[in-house]
Amino acid sequence: MSRTKGKLYVISGPSGTGKGTICAELLKDKHNEFSVSMTTRDPREGEVHGKDYFFVTREEFLDNVEAGNFLEHAQVFDNLYGTPKDMVIKRLDRGYNVLLDIDVQGGLQVRKAMPESILIFILPPSLKELRRRLEGRGTETADKVEKRLGQALSEIKLIGEYDYIIINDDLETAANEARSIIEAESHRVPEAVRGIIREYENELQ
Amino acid sequence: MSRTKGKLYVISGPSGTGKGTICAELLKDKHNEFSVSMTTRDPREGEVHGKDYFFVTREEFLDNVEAGNFLEHAQVFDNLYGTPKDMVIKRLDRGYNVLLDIDVQGGLQVRKAMPESILIFILPPSLKELRRRLEGRGTETADKVEKRLGQALSEIKLIGEYDYIIINDDLETAANEARSIIEAESHRVPEAVRGIIREYENELQ
Repeated sequence: MSRTKGKLYVISGPSGTGKGTICAELLKDKHNEFSVSMTTRDPREGEVHGKDYFFVTREEFLDNVEAGNFLEHAQVFDNLYGTPKDMVIKRLDRGYNVLLDIDVQGGLQVRKAMPESILIFILPPSLKELRRRLEGRGTETADKVEKRLGQALSEIKLIGEYDYIIINDDLETAANEARSIIEAESHRVPEAVRGIIREYENELQ
Repeated sequence: MSRTKGKLYVISGPSGTGKGTICAELLKDKHNEFSVSMTTRDPREGEVHGKDYFFVTREEFLDNVEAGNFLEHAQVFDNLYGTPKDMVIKRLDRGYNVLLDIDVQGGLQVRKAMPESILIFILPPSLKELRRRLEGRGTETADKVEKRLGQALSEIKLIGEYDYIIINDDLETAANEARSIIEAESHRVPEAVRGIIREYENELQ
């Protein structure tokens, strides 16, 4: 089959579900790429402009918001983050799948901007296990863990907007399930085909 | 994840695309089962009632048609064949996926009777290759091969009604693609979840 257009995958899930690790697994396939976000935060040591992030001033960022150049954007503490639309479209046109590791609010913005995007939600096997993982990091105060669990629950409530659910109990299994979803989606009868056939049918009526 | 309801898969494709062999591969997974058809044709040697087919009289068959007991049924030459609805539903409820190896007309009947069914179309890599395979059987006259190719083309025209396309160039690859589709579909956010959330939203409005 000749290489067709890629698809946009949004991968969301509460902090601690391991969606970052799943994305890293998926990126081992050279047909899958991450999108590079734009941000107003300062580069950390070793971060490369155009590879890790596009580092811009607050003014540049807001100009891009104004121009409708983002698929989604959000403020995290004092910094702005956004996914540039043109970059994503260019990669899809070249036949790459683009992965976005973003939160549910961002996912819903993407769905609105590109309804054909595919939304995958990563769930922990239980909230108890999520608590264990968050505490296991050793970097979060008890208060912060509770706050994250509350956030997790409010994100999970939006799961009905997503297309697929993966429960990350075992990383290898979860990554394989995500691979299956991407494989299956590449076999979907394109909406374009349905559209053409519907037109044919209308003509004949 | 606790075992949820299975899904109904219709696997169609022109004669010679190898859909039978793909189904046989899928049946190696004990979560996937074939449905047993009802037919008016005589049992062949070794065929077991209730395992290979339910062998019934024409009268019994037509009574079942009348009672709306079939997901789909069709006449092939002088014989009637049909997929009993209750058997399929029982297996789905028990958590098994049910596979139906039926033609496109049957697939469309199933889609109407059970809109949540998943329709997979198996395509040959080319009509030329399909011709080669049909001729390779050595059992078909040149005339019959041409007729089958014509049938193939008219089935393929209905591909827009299907959910997934698999091109069977290499059996192992095609079977793995079908497995990925079944795996991915088991991760779909159920329509029931969307329905409940939509109701909640309506309540809040």
